[in-house]
Amino acid sequence: MNPELLQWFIPIAGLLAVGFAFYLARDVLSRDTGTKEMMEVSATIQEGAVAFIKRQYMTIGLLALAGAVIITVIISLLETASVADTSHVGIDIGIRTGGAFLIGAACSMACGIIGMLVSVRANVRVASAARRSLVEAVQVAMRGGAVSGFLVVALSLLGVWSIFAINGGLAGGDSTKDAPFLIVGYGFGASFVALFAQLGGGIYTKAADVGSDLVGKVEAGIPEDDPRNAGVIADLVGDNVGDCAGRGADLFESTAAENIGAMILGVGVYAVALKAGWSNPTAWIFFPLVIRAFGLVSTIVAMFFIRGKETENPMNILNRGYWVTTILSAISLAFVTSVMMNTGTTHGDNGIATWVYFFGCGVVGLATSIAFVYITQYYTAGSFRPVREIAEASKTGPATNIISGMAVGFETTAVTAVTIGAALLASNWLGAHSGLGSVGGIFGTAVATMGMLMTTAYVLAMDTFGPITDNAGGIAEFSRAEAGARDITDRLDAVGNTTKALTKGYAIASASLAAFLLFSAYIDKVNLILARQIEAGTRSAADGLMTSVNLANVNVFVAALIAAMLVYFFSSLAIRAVGTTAQAIIVEVRRQFREIPGIMDYTGRPDYARVVDITTRAALKEMMLPGIVAVATPIAVGLLLGYQAVAGMLMVGTIAGVLLATVLNNGGGAWDNAKKYIESGHLLDDNGNVLGKKTDAHAAAVVGDTVGDPFKDTAGPSLHVLVKLLATITLVMAPLFIR
Amino acid sequence: MNPELLQWFIPIAGLLAVGFAFYLARDVLSRDTGTKEMMEVSATIQEGAVAFIKRQYMTIGLLALAGAVIITVIISLLETASVADTSHVGIDIGIRTGGAFLIGAACSMACGIIGMLVSVRANVRVASAARRSLVEAVQVAMRGGAVSGFLVVALSLLGVWSIFAINGGLAGGDSTKDAPFLIVGYGFGASFVALFAQLGGGIYTKAADVGSDLVGKVEAGIPEDDPRNAGVIADLVGDNVGDCAGRGADLFESTAAENIGAMILGVGVYAVALKAGWSNPTAWIFFPLVIRAFGLVSTIVAMFFIRGKETENPMNILNRGYWVTTILSAISLAFVTSVMMNTGTTHGDNGIATWVYFFGCGVVGLATSIAFVYITQYYTAGSFRPVREIAEASKTGPATNIISGMAVGFETTAVTAVTIGAALLASNWLGAHSGLGSVGGIFGTAVATMGMLMTTAYVLAMDTFGPITDNAGGIAEFSRAEAGARDITDRLDAVGNTTKALTKGYAIASASLAAFLLFSAYIDKVNLILARQIEAGTRSAADGLMTSVNLANVNVFVAALIAAMLVYFFSSLAIRAVGTTAQAIIVEVRRQFREIPGIMDYTGRPDYARVVDITTRAALKEMMLPGIVAVATPIAVGLLLGYQAVAGMLMVGTIAGVLLATVLNNGGGAWDNAKKYIESGHLLDDNGNVLGKKTDAHAAAVVGDTVGDPFKDTAGPSLHVLVKLLATITLVMAPLFIR
Repeated sequence: MNPELLQWFIPIAGLLAVGFAFYLARDVLSRDTGTKEMMEVSATIQEGAVAFIKRQYMTIGLLALAGAVIITVIISLLETASVADTSHVGIDIGIRTGGAFLIGAACSMACGIIGMLVSVRANVRVASAARRSLVEAVQVAMRGGAVSGFLVVALSLLGVWSIFAINGGLAGGDSTKDAPFLIVGYGFGASFVALFAQLGGGIYTKAADVGSDLVGKVEAGIPEDDPRNAGVIADLVGDNVGDCAGRGADLFESTAAENIGAMILGVGVYAVALKAGWSNPTAWIFFPLVIRAFGLVSTIVAMFFIRGKETENPMNILNRGYWVTTILSAISLAFVTSVMMNTGTTHGDNGIATWVYFFGCGVVGLATSIAFVYITQYYTAGSFRPVREIAEASKTGPATNIISGMAVGFETTAVTAVTIGAALLASNWLGAHSGLGSVGGIFGTAVATMGMLMTTAYVLAMDTFGPITDNAGGIAEFSRAEAGARDITDRLDAVGNTTKALTKGYAIASASLAAFLLFSAYIDKVNLILARQIEAGTRSAADGLMTSVNLANVNVFVAALIAAMLVYFFSSLAIRAVGTTAQAIIVEVRRQFREIPGIMDYTGRPDYARVVDITTRAALKEMMLPGIVAVATPIAVGLLLGYQAVAGMLMVGTIAGVLLATVLNNGGGAWDNAKKYIESGHLLDDNGNVLGKKTDAHAAAVVGDTVGDPFKDTAGPSLHVLVKLLATITLVMAPLFIR
Repeated sequence: MNPELLQWFIPIAGLLAVGFAFYLARDVLSRDTGTKEMMEVSATIQEGAVAFIKRQYMTIGLLALAGAVIITVIISLLETASVADTSHVGIDIGIRTGGAFLIGAACSMACGIIGMLVSVRANVRVASAARRSLVEAVQVAMRGGAVSGFLVVALSLLGVWSIFAINGGLAGGDSTKDAPFLIVGYGFGASFVALFAQLGGGIYTKAADVGSDLVGKVEAGIPEDDPRNAGVIADLVGDNVGDCAGRGADLFESTAAENIGAMILGVGVYAVALKAGWSNPTAWIFFPLVIRAFGLVSTIVAMFFIRGKETENPMNILNRGYWVTTILSAISLAFVTSVMMNTGTTHGDNGIATWVYFFGCGVVGLATSIAFVYITQYYTAGSFRPVREIAEASKTGPATNIISGMAVGFETTAVTAVTIGAALLASNWLGAHSGLGSVGGIFGTAVATMGMLMTTAYVLAMDTFGPITDNAGGIAEFSRAEAGARDITDRLDAVGNTTKALTKGYAIASASLAAFLLFSAYIDKVNLILARQIEAGTRSAADGLMTSVNLANVNVFVAALIAAMLVYFFSSLAIRAVGTTAQAIIVEVRRQFREIPGIMDYTGRPDYARVVDITTRAALKEMMLPGIVAVATPIAVGLLLGYQAVAGMLMVGTIAGVLLATVLNNGGGAWDNAKKYIESGHLLDDNGNVLGKKTDAHAAAVVGDTVGDPFKDTAGPSLHVLVKLLATITLVMAPLFIR
């Protein structure tokens, strides 16, 4: 089969997935919207969500516009013929980069907006379906979630492909070889939006959660999610804002960054292929996009396997689809590698064909994805040791609960680091023995990343399943639906908690692999520039290329120290922002209790919209400082300490960020589920009596849960984005750091 | 002046300081021992401390013996002529290294034992002095603490100098040049003991604290430090065990490691000096030890400046001595650099003499030390924003207290990293422009480290001041001393909390600088071995030397990832060990309440010794797993991923360890002082009423304080040691990692 044919599969699969997303959206919207009460609540949530979206994306859009202008100017001025890595220089490359940045930003925003609009409409339909059937409710929630999932991956793919095409990527030869370097602006745009979407959303959702709990449950003594509390709708809106829009932007960026990084590495293999005379050397550059296209189609097929019995654990129904996606991905991986990696008479070690080695790399990636799914489950599900340990520690009060939770959070880094390390070493080893020479190892790690990200659309659908079912439960509660429906939404909500945690583990692993790719791409780019300067005589040949990122160099060491510090400092700002924003909610709800007559006896309606508006504004204000710190630090380090130091910052920042995010995400998840474990009556005292709700142990567990909230839903996920932002920002700004 | 004369100042100052320590000890022991009740309590604490020392140092001694045997065997087998970095090979070098290891271990243990024996005798004398005079109490406590301080620095100096002399370091020429490589075993021995002393002591002290609080205050409802609680004596013993013996071993290792690392770097300068024909090239190798000797003498002088008024803040009295030490150190630094760094006609940039640049480096080090003293104060003292913020957050319960404390802990990394980074960059810049060529930069950072560590003896004396005054307060309370005495011990105790926190900041900064030195020494050592192998033909010349620690190499990246993970995992084990040990105490105290008649009405005496014994045994058992993980991980990584990867592990492990320790130490300190802030009545509600003890806000702050305990006194300080252990272990085991 001609590999060039497969290249056309990229836009086809992308458009197919977009079409499928619209089909799913129509299907979801056509469902029954439940009782009048349900519709009322849902409408209020929608209203709040739309208000948030408008303000949030207006702000982010303006920031992105300003960013695009600044980037265009900087690149136009800096990327002169002597430092450019392609034949495009000056204003030409400036506008190309700024334009790509804007398109990346726009696509990311579009995914977030459409995904959220569908998910806030799906919630009431899930609540309605829960009155009839568990399986139907699972299907509606999953299809609603899949709209986001497909849009994110498909738009990321189509975006990269289109800019690649615009920049002459389809013309073949040198034009194709240069194009990957021209699309890095797209990745930067995606990171930029992801940073603010995740930060703003994360701050909003947890401030609403903590603030309305403190002012309602603690101060006024009314139940959680009580309609008299004006902060409750903000809380329900927050679930969509943080988990749905935030994580969508996060993984949009992962796939975009990975596509770009892998294509740049593909250029290295292209040179090898050209020299060796293999047929279709450009196939190596297209390979990452083709793999992604097949991943999308595998996921479309898997959507039809989401079915099961009414009595079944809903998690099993979702797992069925996940395994179908994984198996189909593995099969298509074998097909694509065997077609596109035709190395003629060259073979890997032991006479095994080159493509077999890379198929192995892809399988390593798929296996890593599966490993993270189970690791996260072990550390955050009530059936295993860690959560039980925290629940037991709650017996002696909040202090021991917190200590135990921190110990568990710290512990989770071990298996995370070992898994990522093993995946890198294994795929690097396979690539190095594939017969591709020195570029093989790093390209092997790229293929592993591609393999891992083949299932992104499905994982994202499972993630968005979380806020949809969470909201469905809230709607059922709020509208006082029948017990049967509430029982089903409760079961779905518990599953949703697990899937949200899984996605974070998946996002973190993919962030670290994507950052490693972009790091290699950064080195390639710096060396292209250095080579040009040496050739042009503006740099002494004795200076040589960047052959290593030398930690023994004091500048690199200091940059690494700053990078590791940055992840703590950034998290500190994000966590503190939640507290400040929550204060704004508390003040407003208190005012409403005081000034609006009849709230307490249900005769007066609280002003939900005002709380949503105040929270939105406060969250957007508070996201600025951590956002600016994240963008400014790598640029400042690059300017002060040079291009090699930035590379050190990138690597060590990735390591530190991934591990701290693991601590925060898993620690938070474990605290959350330790509380649920106690609420479900699993904790017993020395005499075998159940220690359930309203005991001291439960109160201690609630403290842990509250502490974990900003950890796992604000700081942790924002760190994923920070790690990738470090990579894209340095890649785009590289000429700035070379003197 | 002839620099060789200054070399003889090393043993003289060392012996002088040892003599001075004995003079101080005699002086302290000659003081009045207070009332009969005071003597009784003190005797019980002494008894417990001696029991702990016996068991703890027996265990550590056996571990050290086993370690020495293993090291001797490994080095004898590995360090054959083809890989040795000196002319000593095989059994010869094996026995030399094993012997140095044992001497290092023995010196460290001797410091810990003598220091603790003096400090548990000083406590009652301070309590007695407090009945008469504040200034006298400060002097007794500070002199008791200085016994540890002087012994630690002097024995470290004499030990390094003696082994250096035994290995021919005084013979001049090549013999002097080789000797520094033969003493690395001493540093490893010191690290090894420090690891277990700090871990065992840290686990013991916090388990006793948390365990006796939970079983006494929470369960039985009796006050803290109540004599009916059998765990209270264990708690008082614990203060000495953790802060005194633990931190002593920690800084013993810092100074030993820094001496060795700086001497190895001095060998590089020696080569430059020899080639340039400067007089006394060996002076560069002796320089680190001479500087240390002058630091000791400066501190001896400063001890006589610890005086002040009865009405004065005791912190001012201590600061007076610190500033005298610093100023005398700066003066002697100028003297020593000008005498020993005679570069003949060679000058640094701008015609400034070479020694002036290095004097500048030393001043950078002294300034770093001062900076850390004030940074720690800002973040952990009640007069500044961070602690107040945590106290305010306590108003809304334990969850917000914890969130706020974590945010503060995370935030403290920023100024820590920037200060260390600035010190490294500045001293590297000064060194690079000093006229020493390419070795100048790294030697500049070495001189900065020396400058910083000149004040170690004084800082350690202030640190041990902490447990002594803490115990004095406990004794006054326990023996129901008059209010005036208790008032004075309370004031001293508050100062002691600050000095303990300061020492941790100081220890962390010195750990990072010492690790950076040892890292450079490691690279030198590896290259010596590689050069020999290439010369001998057992290694291809094309492989070349290790010119960089390349983060872009996948093995290095994975090792760095493992290193950053190790600091979390190790902390998790240490924190968990505290919980397990505390459980053992709770079970035993409960048993005593139940089985010993008359405890509650003071007619029966609890069995304090048994609790001490049980805690000791449990702590020693629990320190094994984290200890083994710390020792085994770098060796495993070196064996699997090679010598370059280990270097990456070292650097990134240092960065990650220093930052996590900063988070844990400062977060813990801030929580502790937020509680004290509330107890002193500084927290007001919205109407201006004091929220003091027994309010909900205070209860919330107690939760934070308890969470902080294992952070700041077990995991944090153990991380300092881990960082340096990584360095010494890889330096000694280097031949193992080269294949």
